[in-house]
Amino acid sequence: MKETPESPLKTPRTKLRRMPSRGSHERAAVEAILDEALVCHAGLIDDGLPVVVPTLHARVGATLYLHGSAASRALRESGGAEICLTATLLDGLVLARAALHHSANYRSAIVFGRASLVAEEGEKLAALEALVEKIVPGRWADARRPTERELRATAVLRLPLEEASAKVREGGPADEQEDMDLPVWAGVVPMRTVAAPPEPDEQLAPGVEVPEYVDALVGEFA
Amino acid sequence: MKETPESPLKTPRTKLRRMPSRGSHERAAVEAILDEALVCHAGLIDDGLPVVVPTLHARVGATLYLHGSAASRALRESGGAEICLTATLLDGLVLARAALHHSANYRSAIVFGRASLVAEEGEKLAALEALVEKIVPGRWADARRPTERELRATAVLRLPLEEASAKVREGGPADEQEDMDLPVWAGVVPMRTVAAPPEPDEQLAPGVEVPEYVDALVGEFA
Repeated sequence: MKETPESPLKTPRTKLRRMPSRGSHERAAVEAILDEALVCHAGLIDDGLPVVVPTLHARVGATLYLHGSAASRALRESGGAEICLTATLLDGLVLARAALHHSANYRSAIVFGRASLVAEEGEKLAALEALVEKIVPGRWADARRPTERELRATAVLRLPLEEASAKVREGGPADEQEDMDLPVWAGVVPMRTVAAPPEPDEQLAPGVEVPEYVDALVGEFA
Repeated sequence: MKETPESPLKTPRTKLRRMPSRGSHERAAVEAILDEALVCHAGLIDDGLPVVVPTLHARVGATLYLHGSAASRALRESGGAEICLTATLLDGLVLARAALHHSANYRSAIVFGRASLVAEEGEKLAALEALVEKIVPGRWADARRPTERELRATAVLRLPLEEASAKVREGGPADEQEDMDLPVWAGVVPMRTVAAPPEPDEQLAPGVEVPEYVDALVGEFA
């Protein structure tokens, strides 16, 4: 991936050691992956051992927010912790002629940094809005807003987007030249995450229709 | 999730501290999630900091195998390292009446253990077969097998499936009773990972047709 001379997300820790040609430290590349991915995996150290938990994330400018419940045990104890947040989009299965060249097409973003609990109520509310809008754009305006009590009881984590890299594998299989004539099918099976028709809650109030922003999701995420 | 009296995957480390009712230590539950997930996230400690990398995995009985390239830097140096392997399947977006109850339906498996490099050639070959068959069942029989030289140059990691847990969120939104009559649509948008029609490699040998096991993927992963 092309990189501009100044790549402020690059640090010793985010230097791409393996296949650097597939990587980038461009903020736009990293942000696009984080914005498209619905789920991320946050890794932290707990009692000296690595722990990786899936969680929802949302970006507001140069800050990432996470629902605090999942990853916050170690954080609550320490008031902040080094985490690694990784989001991956699977784009395709790569079938090569040679077994060893089978692979996957993907886009992943890795963010390193110190996560901390959001204390200020305004920031917390903005983070929750971003998290709800991330799940379904347009949803925040309809949903019942948090009460002050709910807001106080909710943990949200902040992770600055300052140290990060993106990695992308795309295109067809990378077979050896001498394997090209083998009578073995080779190519890519593209993979997509799609939404199926919505299933309304059984106790929906009478007359409530499926909102447009929900219908718009179906078949999306292509 | 129901649990039989003996759950050998349960250890102090895999005790479910948050929402234990959503969790299980049943081997069958953990294995089903690992087998269905095409990508996992492996977390390890590198220079005292957590690192999470996406990678492909495959299971052979009670052992998980990973392509060694991605996570192996720290491993190569140490001859083995504690890792946490997490695989997550996103099943749906959960839209609640209240903003704070928005969530996702998912199934995730978390495996803890010491990963080590596979040295023995027979085990390495069996692991590679499992990894190729995981990408596309039926593929190993067609693909060109690794040479001895290729095999020696390939790093494969072994992780015993001995300490693990599964976590599942399913069903509709968990709104408060007093919110039930709000005129807000609530329900679940099911999410699926599907395969699109295969894209043949440009340099395919003449007369090579798309194999049945590739055609069988399209629209699958439902």
